[in-house]
Amino acid sequence: MNKLSKVQSAYIAGFLDADGSIYVKLTKNSTYKYHYQVSSYIVFYQSLSSNKSLSEIQQILGIGYLRKRNDGIEEFIIGDTSSIKEFVKQIKPFLIYKQKQADLILKILDQKEKTKSAEQFLALCELIDQFKELNYSKKRTVLTEVVKVTLKNLGLLTP
Amino acid sequence: MNKLSKVQSAYIAGFLDADGSIYVKLTKNSTYKYHYQVSSYIVFYQSLSSNKSLSEIQQILGIGYLRKRNDGIEEFIIGDTSSIKEFVKQIKPFLIYKQKQADLILKILDQKEKTKSAEQFLALCELIDQFKELNYSKKRTVLTEVVKVTLKNLGLLTP
Repeated sequence: MNKLSKVQSAYIAGFLDADGSIYVKLTKNSTYKYHYQVSSYIVFYQSLSSNKSLSEIQQILGIGYLRKRNDGIEEFIIGDTSSIKEFVKQIKPFLIYKQKQADLILKILDQKEKTKSAEQFLALCELIDQFKELNYSKKRTVLTEVVKVTLKNLGLLTP
Repeated sequence: MNKLSKVQSAYIAGFLDADGSIYVKLTKNSTYKYHYQVSSYIVFYQSLSSNKSLSEIQQILGIGYLRKRNDGIEEFIIGDTSSIKEFVKQIKPFLIYKQKQADLILKILDQKEKTKSAEQFLALCELIDQFKELNYSKKRTVLTEVVKVTLKNLGLLTP
């Protein structure tokens, strides 16, 4: 990722506060040890009808990728762990509205690396659950309680 | 309006680029000399469901007012000419996507003060029309051609 000036960091923070998202989600995937994948994202959105592309933001940062959704929204997505960490550390001092999400994603990425047991994985899931409230995401359904059932069924948790 | 630091200006520019609007519109109003009112706006938007209020942005700037729309969107509006001018001058160097709108609104506010005839008012309307394309505003219907018909009917234009 490019090193940003204070002015660039502040601009990006304003853009993200207005129309971006910071979140971590759980996805069912039985190829993973605990049968759930933990995915972290920083996403910027723009309506494609506006003819402005988020590629200018991407160029400033030098990370992430662009995606066109079927509903006419362009997304600029930062999905890899090391880019997210570096990005959040640079931007965080300038955020006004998404400070809590920034702190939480860093905490989760840190704790994820240290997760060594099903119990610790559940503790991680509880942190991830906090995004539901922080981001008012009504659609989030894969929560700790759901993961717990899977882990019990797999015999990974002591009952 | 408060004097902003570079970092504050850059943050606000990012916020406005992501989720704000700069525009001038014409509204039929027969109490005005040419029967159309010219109104200029800087508007920031946020979903009320997000529980974040734009009052923090308002406090940084020290101008404008907040409005809650019926559709759950909060607007922070800067509508008075002198605030808009000062705001745009401070923010403009940091804008990436709305540079043209910033230049255009300053040009219109300047030209508006100098308008002394119906012909000059139509020239002003032509500048205002440019926002239709810049902002992809499909709903804009009061354009120069409409004003021209009114001015002709009022006998203010030589046919």
